[in-house]
Amino acid sequence: MEFSAKQIASLINGTIDGNPEARVNRISKIEEGQPGSMTFLANPLYTQYIYTTAASIILVNTSFKPEKPVSGTLIRVDDPYAAFAKLLEVYHATIRQKEGISESAAISPSARIGRHVYIGPFVSIGEDAVVGDHAEIHSHVFIGDRAMIGEHSVLHAGVKVYRDCVIGRHCIIHAGVVIGADGFGFAPQDTLEYKKVIQAGNVILEDYVEVGANTTIDRATLGSTIIRKGVKLDNLIQIAHNVEIGENTVIAAQTGISGSTKIGRNCMIGGQVGIIGHLTIADNVKIAAQSGIGNSITEAGAIVQGSPAFEIAPYRKSYIHFRNLDRIVKKIRDIEKRIEKKE
Amino acid sequence: MEFSAKQIASLINGTIDGNPEARVNRISKIEEGQPGSMTFLANPLYTQYIYTTAASIILVNTSFKPEKPVSGTLIRVDDPYAAFAKLLEVYHATIRQKEGISESAAISPSARIGRHVYIGPFVSIGEDAVVGDHAEIHSHVFIGDRAMIGEHSVLHAGVKVYRDCVIGRHCIIHAGVVIGADGFGFAPQDTLEYKKVIQAGNVILEDYVEVGANTTIDRATLGSTIIRKGVKLDNLIQIAHNVEIGENTVIAAQTGISGSTKIGRNCMIGGQVGIIGHLTIADNVKIAAQSGIGNSITEAGAIVQGSPAFEIAPYRKSYIHFRNLDRIVKKIRDIEKRIEKKE
Amino acid sequence: MEFSAKQIASLINGTIDGNPEARVNRISKIEEGQPGSMTFLANPLYTQYIYTTAASIILVNTSFKPEKPVSGTLIRVDDPYAAFAKLLEVYHATIRQKEGISESAAISPSARIGRHVYIGPFVSIGEDAVVGDHAEIHSHVFIGDRAMIGEHSVLHAGVKVYRDCVIGRHCIIHAGVVIGADGFGFAPQDTLEYKKVIQAGNVILEDYVEVGANTTIDRATLGSTIIRKGVKLDNLIQIAHNVEIGENTVIAAQTGISGSTKIGRNCMIGGQVGIIGHLTIADNVKIAAQSGIGNSITEAGAIVQGSPAFEIAPYRKSYIHFRNLDRIVKKIRDIEKRIEKKE
Repeated sequence: MEFSAKQIASLINGTIDGNPEARVNRISKIEEGQPGSMTFLANPLYTQYIYTTAASIILVNTSFKPEKPVSGTLIRVDDPYAAFAKLLEVYHATIRQKEGISESAAISPSARIGRHVYIGPFVSIGEDAVVGDHAEIHSHVFIGDRAMIGEHSVLHAGVKVYRDCVIGRHCIIHAGVVIGADGFGFAPQDTLEYKKVIQAGNVILEDYVEVGANTTIDRATLGSTIIRKGVKLDNLIQIAHNVEIGENTVIAAQTGISGSTKIGRNCMIGGQVGIIGHLTIADNVKIAAQSGIGNSITEAGAIVQGSPAFEIAPYRKSYIHFRNLDRIVKKIRDIEKRIEKKE
Repeated sequence: MEFSAKQIASLINGTIDGNPEARVNRISKIEEGQPGSMTFLANPLYTQYIYTTAASIILVNTSFKPEKPVSGTLIRVDDPYAAFAKLLEVYHATIRQKEGISESAAISPSARIGRHVYIGPFVSIGEDAVVGDHAEIHSHVFIGDRAMIGEHSVLHAGVKVYRDCVIGRHCIIHAGVVIGADGFGFAPQDTLEYKKVIQAGNVILEDYVEVGANTTIDRATLGSTIIRKGVKLDNLIQIAHNVEIGENTVIAAQTGISGSTKIGRNCMIGGQVGIIGHLTIADNVKIAAQSGIGNSITEAGAIVQGSPAFEIAPYRKSYIHFRNLDRIVKKIRDIEKRIEKKE
Repeated sequence: MEFSAKQIASLINGTIDGNPEARVNRISKIEEGQPGSMTFLANPLYTQYIYTTAASIILVNTSFKPEKPVSGTLIRVDDPYAAFAKLLEVYHATIRQKEGISESAAISPSARIGRHVYIGPFVSIGEDAVVGDHAEIHSHVFIGDRAMIGEHSVLHAGVKVYRDCVIGRHCIIHAGVVIGADGFGFAPQDTLEYKKVIQAGNVILEDYVEVGANTTIDRATLGSTIIRKGVKLDNLIQIAHNVEIGENTVIAAQTGISGSTKIGRNCMIGGQVGIIGHLTIADNVKIAAQSGIGNSITEAGAIVQGSPAFEIAPYRKSYIHFRNLDRIVKKIRDIEKRIEKKE
């Protein structure tokens, strides 16, 4: 699809400085702009590139004054990044929407499928499962018996949702995610063998949750593993049985949260963090990447680092001394000698 | 399915204290009990909830004496948790069992398929592969040429088993697991490129192994990567080529074990642990979460922590001092000044 | 397939010492050799096994002089490991090649499929996608609209390639890999909710890239996430949006690289390493397992360890002192007392 500068300016309420008939069919970074692409200048550090980019259309701030000639057509707006993001959404809406149910999908006769859905090739939907209106279910997705997928949610290729799990509305679940596998629960026997503890609960994702590729969220032993509204999970994260994650908490890739731990709202958890089981983490807590959390964090807004983690400022001080330990130890030896001389 | 207190009591040899006709159709945690649900009281810390729960049936210890009125029907048994676990198994058996072969499965004519199996939609089974009696193979599973799946084993949706790999009896493999991908073996060339080393071995899982979602177990370069009887692996674990894991060892999520390392029996390995290649870990060893193992552990029953790891007690002492390093360094400066005054 | 010692010797230009009609149909490690298997002796530490192995054929060095009787037939070559690797490749070529397009594959009429390809059961290929000559696309692979797969590349079972992504020639992508899922980009709102930032870019893998099982490589926000020629990625790795990895860099399992970080050529990155976003890592850098990289590394060839990481030699010194901290602290107390006595 091609758009003219005139069309774009009218969509974002901008004013054109250059050729209103300039046409673009794709987007680019400003430093990689090519004829036919549109870009934007929001960060002043990138201003240099506006004089060299070959992009045909560039969104700039209303106040931007070029110091040299610019080859592309400028569209001036109050907030170029926001305007660009809005255009991206328009563009995305034109390419994303798929509709219709593939003939190769295997849908149980007892499943209830909403209106205006997309169900791709080789999708498997179990007994009494529910797929809401406008949901997109891509190739190779498995939806187990009695599982429910909310309206407008998107399950990308190969997502597996075990039986009885519930996914809210407007969720986005990326390829390879596994929702509702058994929690890791075993009872040690006198024989030193382990006996499986039946995992009889489920997983509930509330609305507007996004889950990154190949992340796993285990079903509860009893009750539900719960991911609250607006939570964003990155790729390859492990969420164990009976965990609960509060609203609008974001967690970076490869973090693992052990069983029955309860995370507050609006937390920010870095990548490769490990949190042991049965803890409570307060609201607004920030945890630095690679930290290990061995105790509950009761103070809202705490910022911690380390494995085991403690407050970030003393952690950083300790770590600076750790780097200097060889000098510190030498100083101690030196002091010792000076004392020996006195004795 | 509904069960009455009378039916339940007879299954677990309990005595009824209340209405023998009370009926339940689901299970719940005691603090979340609703009319129609059954729960149990095993942990004394939860005793308070027995007076507020709305559950219709509650399993309690024979010796339990209520201090206030309880609304639900009590069933008294010697071990409420064990009785509850037994009921869970009965319940689970009623919902889990699937049988029959989906018409959409692609099964090689040379594959041998046992009796009473379940083979779900879009399952792909290669040449000369074997699926044992009573196995459950769920949607989108891939079983490569000559691979063997033992009796009573369950492969959940989307499991991929490469050619020539062997899975024992009574194993449970969760969704997204990859068994038998090539080990990470490359020979550096003078050109600074890497040449792939053919991975010609396989993976063997013995009986009663459970593997968590999206875990990967690589095939051996030569010979076999071996997971011994009763091993339990959590989600997102990496097992490299030619690793061997001893009987009844349990490993928590996101741990990685590098090539040719041999782990003993009855070990307990925490989450996000890394173990480098070509090591030997003795039996009964415990490794704390996030530890890094850089050397063999020859002492059976050792407990270690840290990256690199050493014995857990001195590790914890060192870490307490690490937290105090700023104070320690200040004390050294103070001592220095006091000496200077003397000199 | 069976091979005789005579056939094998002629393939690798070896001389036979024993029965030229000895026959083998598989390969083994020397310590696990069985009648009918072929093995090799390259590492002198394994010499003891040549006297006990039951392997029918053993490749040995031209100069090898047995000190006791050997039961198998020897084939003498200049470099037994290289000869064995060559035979492995011949063997592998005989078992690996699959050709033909499965009737159950769902291929868009607008997709362009090359010659001599293998397309397995339940493969889904989108609109205007391209699959090059001699490519192998195994069961349950999803190739999105307009995605391109280069000649001779192998996509193992269940790989998911989102729309518009590009995979070069001679790549090997293992089962469960997800290429092109959305980057983890969200704009915080005044309501404390997060608004998704459209991820409009793609992923480009150049030629000869290998990607391990269940690894995830996210699409760029704008532009491309780029994996350069000859890069080797192990299992369960996370590559975030707009990352670039230089030629012939190898990365071990479970490492995560955050958004927009640029890694140089010929780097070696250990397992479970975390690298934060927007950094630059120079060429030939080595990073020890479990390290955390919080700052750019500008010195080519640097070797670092720790979280946060610094140069490996001082890191190791610091860590030795860390292990001794309890003794160090006791010494400080001792010094303090000796001073007090003087004061």
